[in-house]
Amino acid sequence: MAVRRGRQFLHTPGPTTMPDRILQAMARPALDHRGPEFLAVAGRCFAGLRAVFRTERPVLIYPAAGHGAWEAALANVCAPGDRVLMCETGAFSQWWKEMAEALGLAVDYLPGDWRRGADPAAVEAHLAADRGRAVRAVAVVHNETSTGVASRVAGIREAIDAAGHPALFLVDTISSLASIDFRMDEWGVDVAVGGSQKGLMLPPGLGFTGVSEKAFRAARGNPTPRSYWDWRAMMPDGETPGFVCTPPVNLMFGLAEALDMLEEEGLEACFARHRRLAEAARRAIAGWGLALNPLDSREASDSVSAALMPEGHDAEEVRRIARERYDVVLGVGILRLAGRAFRIGHMGDLNEPMLLGALAAVQAALAGAGAPHDPSGILAAIDWLAESAGDA
Amino acid sequence: MAVRRGRQFLHTPGPTTMPDRILQAMARPALDHRGPEFLAVAGRCFAGLRAVFRTERPVLIYPAAGHGAWEAALANVCAPGDRVLMCETGAFSQWWKEMAEALGLAVDYLPGDWRRGADPAAVEAHLAADRGRAVRAVAVVHNETSTGVASRVAGIREAIDAAGHPALFLVDTISSLASIDFRMDEWGVDVAVGGSQKGLMLPPGLGFTGVSEKAFRAARGNPTPRSYWDWRAMMPDGETPGFVCTPPVNLMFGLAEALDMLEEEGLEACFARHRRLAEAARRAIAGWGLALNPLDSREASDSVSAALMPEGHDAEEVRRIARERYDVVLGVGILRLAGRAFRIGHMGDLNEPMLLGALAAVQAALAGAGAPHDPSGILAAIDWLAESAGDA
Amino acid sequence: MAVRRGRQFLHTPGPTTMPDRILQAMARPALDHRGPEFLAVAGRCFAGLRAVFRTERPVLIYPAAGHGAWEAALANVCAPGDRVLMCETGAFSQWWKEMAEALGLAVDYLPGDWRRGADPAAVEAHLAADRGRAVRAVAVVHNETSTGVASRVAGIREAIDAAGHPALFLVDTISSLASIDFRMDEWGVDVAVGGSQKGLMLPPGLGFTGVSEKAFRAARGNPTPRSYWDWRAMMPDGETPGFVCTPPVNLMFGLAEALDMLEEEGLEACFARHRRLAEAARRAIAGWGLALNPLDSREASDSVSAALMPEGHDAEEVRRIARERYDVVLGVGILRLAGRAFRIGHMGDLNEPMLLGALAAVQAALAGAGAPHDPSGILAAIDWLAESAGDA
Amino acid sequence: MAVRRGRQFLHTPGPTTMPDRILQAMARPALDHRGPEFLAVAGRCFAGLRAVFRTERPVLIYPAAGHGAWEAALANVCAPGDRVLMCETGAFSQWWKEMAEALGLAVDYLPGDWRRGADPAAVEAHLAADRGRAVRAVAVVHNETSTGVASRVAGIREAIDAAGHPALFLVDTISSLASIDFRMDEWGVDVAVGGSQKGLMLPPGLGFTGVSEKAFRAARGNPTPRSYWDWRAMMPDGETPGFVCTPPVNLMFGLAEALDMLEEEGLEACFARHRRLAEAARRAIAGWGLALNPLDSREASDSVSAALMPEGHDAEEVRRIARERYDVVLGVGILRLAGRAFRIGHMGDLNEPMLLGALAAVQAALAGAGAPHDPSGILAAIDWLAESAGDA
Repeated sequence: MAVRRGRQFLHTPGPTTMPDRILQAMARPALDHRGPEFLAVAGRCFAGLRAVFRTERPVLIYPAAGHGAWEAALANVCAPGDRVLMCETGAFSQWWKEMAEALGLAVDYLPGDWRRGADPAAVEAHLAADRGRAVRAVAVVHNETSTGVASRVAGIREAIDAAGHPALFLVDTISSLASIDFRMDEWGVDVAVGGSQKGLMLPPGLGFTGVSEKAFRAARGNPTPRSYWDWRAMMPDGETPGFVCTPPVNLMFGLAEALDMLEEEGLEACFARHRRLAEAARRAIAGWGLALNPLDSREASDSVSAALMPEGHDAEEVRRIARERYDVVLGVGILRLAGRAFRIGHMGDLNEPMLLGALAAVQAALAGAGAPHDPSGILAAIDWLAESAGDA
Repeated sequence: MAVRRGRQFLHTPGPTTMPDRILQAMARPALDHRGPEFLAVAGRCFAGLRAVFRTERPVLIYPAAGHGAWEAALANVCAPGDRVLMCETGAFSQWWKEMAEALGLAVDYLPGDWRRGADPAAVEAHLAADRGRAVRAVAVVHNETSTGVASRVAGIREAIDAAGHPALFLVDTISSLASIDFRMDEWGVDVAVGGSQKGLMLPPGLGFTGVSEKAFRAARGNPTPRSYWDWRAMMPDGETPGFVCTPPVNLMFGLAEALDMLEEEGLEACFARHRRLAEAARRAIAGWGLALNPLDSREASDSVSAALMPEGHDAEEVRRIARERYDVVLGVGILRLAGRAFRIGHMGDLNEPMLLGALAAVQAALAGAGAPHDPSGILAAIDWLAESAGDA
Repeated sequence: MAVRRGRQFLHTPGPTTMPDRILQAMARPALDHRGPEFLAVAGRCFAGLRAVFRTERPVLIYPAAGHGAWEAALANVCAPGDRVLMCETGAFSQWWKEMAEALGLAVDYLPGDWRRGADPAAVEAHLAADRGRAVRAVAVVHNETSTGVASRVAGIREAIDAAGHPALFLVDTISSLASIDFRMDEWGVDVAVGGSQKGLMLPPGLGFTGVSEKAFRAARGNPTPRSYWDWRAMMPDGETPGFVCTPPVNLMFGLAEALDMLEEEGLEACFARHRRLAEAARRAIAGWGLALNPLDSREASDSVSAALMPEGHDAEEVRRIARERYDVVLGVGILRLAGRAFRIGHMGDLNEPMLLGALAAVQAALAGAGAPHDPSGILAAIDWLAESAGDA
Repeated sequence: MAVRRGRQFLHTPGPTTMPDRILQAMARPALDHRGPEFLAVAGRCFAGLRAVFRTERPVLIYPAAGHGAWEAALANVCAPGDRVLMCETGAFSQWWKEMAEALGLAVDYLPGDWRRGADPAAVEAHLAADRGRAVRAVAVVHNETSTGVASRVAGIREAIDAAGHPALFLVDTISSLASIDFRMDEWGVDVAVGGSQKGLMLPPGLGFTGVSEKAFRAARGNPTPRSYWDWRAMMPDGETPGFVCTPPVNLMFGLAEALDMLEEEGLEACFARHRRLAEAARRAIAGWGLALNPLDSREASDSVSAALMPEGHDAEEVRRIARERYDVVLGVGILRLAGRAFRIGHMGDLNEPMLLGALAAVQAALAGAGAPHDPSGILAAIDWLAESAGDA
């Protein structure tokens, strides 16, 4: 096989391309994790996460994958037998549901078509019908990585309120955090679940949960046997996050750097950048004559776009050619979208030429796969970026 | 405060000093974790861990602290209400016991004095008395990081066998793995719990469990609700380890490098190096006229040495001076040993001048703290290293 | 000013984007430069450079910029007052000429129009007319970085031979080495001058000279006072290159890695990759309706392309917009081409999406600058890369 | 051969152990060396070097070894045939003298015994006898790396003044800069020659010359043919240093970081640290019963100590054992000191345990080599460091 040169363009929707600053920060030698130097790093991380989650409340850090933070959310506020309302949005909502079941919870799973976000009206109706207030929590994926659909979280909050239901509100922000506007406090989210390897530009290995007062109260009274994820041990006062285990030192060096970078750019500027680059991807997809998976343009994700292939054409062939001939890695179509969609991740440390290089290679891969497409797709992306560039 | 120059000497018993090769390996840019390149890395890790655990059986990898691997061991083979026999060896045995209780297990905790390892005779007696075979598992810490005492794991195995008891045998190898001889298969260990940040020379963030056939069978039949740690999901066939969550890509780049390094050196050579350096530390401690914490020299740990201060002298003052004046970080005395002992970690990527520099600084710190000590301690260490150096 | 995110696309024709492997290799800690480990690195470098220069002869390494290797070439084989024949090809030929004059040499400078390479016929005529054999050396720039024109070095060799002239043949390969076919021995080059920061993918800081037997004989008899550059001290036997000064340890770690990478890819494959990517750049330029600076397509450089702006449009405005709005850095138009041309470097560690991202951004910058251009330029590049991609 | 683990202790007197901060700074990806970001780095370097040289005058930077800066000094202010007064202090004075001769200069070489610094009285006498003012320059090595002797530069300045001689004063500060007090302006040094790989904690590859007004005037009128080193091209106005060649980008990233680190610590604190650590080395050597090479304790170098072996014992055997058994690399005895002395470098990024580890290993190596020595050497070093540690 021919040796490849140059840098791989990683456009999976996470893990994402990591900036050198972060890689270097994590390559810092070991230090005393009980000494003042590391305590400062940890303090910076706990403070910075609050800003990113837009909350006044503590955000806990677990050495874990994002799945771990899912489990932490469920294990702390629900006990086996509890009922949870979840909304089918795609593969990740399904896996979270399966986890809930494995943990012994009873799940009410509102069906979805994988092209729309969680439906506030359906949530409201379901909760309104729950006269016994048996539903302990509503759990929604903010940005469905598998479909490129972003649910309107504020709308779900309104639905819960409209039903006058006391359920806790759990939101998976793993692939929206630091890419798409998310407001834990303003939107009344009780547990916000995050991970390191998406908008935070880190490798996988850290899970986060923002914890509301109401959620912490629920956790305090929750008899579920638990230890690793137990908020009571990690944050006895419900206010001051810490570690029971050895903290994940080097990942936290990276997290501190990531939080510095986000602060330098500004969250609003970061969201605007994602929105602008996402729009370029969407215009390229539309320009090629392919359908974007989300049916409602208000729900098109700014961190990942899923393009649907024309009937009779295999998305996997496009992905294979993009990767093998051009070293551009696209996201796979998962479960219901397998073979039917390819996904272009556009989150994290990304700029115009990175995205344009990827889109141009996708165009070449469509040609290589013999997939019908209008070559003006790339031109639409370039034009959009040129016209929206400002006057630097 | 004066700016420090030069490299900190990190002699906590983990996290340990990481070699540059490993730091660089982890600084590798993100890649497609579903592509062939990463699959090769993962394969290398799973294979290499078997060699380090000395087992033919699979070793699972969790994005987690070592505590997570503890929980994985307990959650997979025990159900709430099950009885577990644990041996008090120090702070880590105690924390593991507290975790077991938090998970709803009933713990029989054989008392210890923190200066001896787990007692095979006591284990045998306890199991022999357990006529109803209520004890589901025996859980022992191989190397008690808090006391510098290494338990004789093979002896515990013999005790279980002598009692003819069917209990599963769980061993925490976190601070012995790749530093002190450990043989999962030969010693009949059912679940071996490991972590990344000690002998494996990595940052914290990976937990491991080696899983015997018997343990996997127990896990299969175990109704305990669980997801993140569930062996059935990570290894449906009981043979082929994998990931449910996103694998911890960059930590695994480091793990693959660490396994390469261990293979280059050879496990036996690695153990011999630890033994020789540990002996130098012990001779220095004895030379200073301080007591070594372990009472039985066969149980002195080769990865960490705890020195007891003379009555009326505070170990924390020695630690403070070593760190603040000489940038040498020692391990703190924990719980029962607080203020009474300081610990010198000597595991991982260590050689003679690194250890001698640390010991010489400890000697200066003893002087600075006004602690009575014979200055020939460092000479005993030098002499030992000179006489045992071979004929390079 | 807005904070930029993502990676800068560096398309100056050197220094070029460095692969992470090389950056990491150079980040290796200091070691004993007289010990066996470094001797192996140095040996690897000296051997590998012969392969890259395609010579059986030694290649010397100087801690120096490429300019230093120019001076080394001139100072070793010419004495003040000697006559040198040089060919005007652009800014670099001019600077080399000025250096020769500063060193006290008399330069015959064959005029050129900056759009063609060195003219073999003119060289032959000049040498034929030099009946007294006063010309001591012919000095030619293989690849004129300032104009994107590659001279046909073999043709100059033939011209010298046709004139039956004994002059030494000096060639600057700084921006062609490891990017464009160059054959020191086959083409009878007496001194080949190279540098680290172009096709070798290293930072600036190393200069090289390949030295033929004839050149070394000339150096031996040359009374010019010299020390730092003196081949007699660096290579007393004329065969075995070495250092008088402290070797540039970390740059040589990088060089060894670069040579490994070139060997893995294969020089022919590396040249083919450069040719293919250069052709994409040329098709984009032609597609935009801009003129490529070289008039003879056989002389179009495969490592850098200079595009001429339409009358009345300032190349600097395109460069400014590309850099400020899109973080794509293009090469400046130098001296005679100032404001008239921008240059796209496409050498070193480069692949398709990197180049396409840059070209797409140039297209956006042309739009931003209001420069007339046909937007199908990028499509021509994509089409070419798709059709020439092979069947991976 | 057994695989070594742990970090090599590099105690050659340069290249020295580089801090990770500097290695990381140099691992920064390539950037546009004509862009504003690099201009800021270059500006920081030029400004910071003035502070380190303690001069108001410009300091030029060459991509070159320290030898290059020697040549730059001589080639700019002397012309072939000029007379230069040099003082034999050891191997480096000799090599500089040989370079001067190779450049066509006539050298008056005041003899020395390699155990004393340059003799002010002899310099004064020689200059006083030079009635025709034929001596164009006096050239002295501040810190003779080969002997561990530091000359009293201020005393030489006084000698020149006492003789009322107009000669320029050139000083090699390569192994004293940023380790031992040096004051270019206060001591009336006309050309101060420096390098990167010693006190500046960088790899080799940068040479420096501080240039007084008088030196620049001399350079302006100097007809010597030259180009690479030519101050007139690098600094046309005699005030504003710059580059003619491509700047050594990555080494300058490292230099900027080194200058930051020196500024954080403070030059005076840095000198005091070197003095204190050097004193520990000297006490160890004296404690072993070995002679320190410098005869006058005021001339003992604070950056390197040379220890003389007892008659009949080979210093190379001690070095070999230190390196092969303990991974501690000592400096070789050069020329007149070959086999008779080993040298312990103690400059740059060094702290107490690093030095103590090296000294303890030297003690073990003396034992291994069967060299008579008093083992209390290491105790003397520890005691000194303990008593001089302050009250942190």
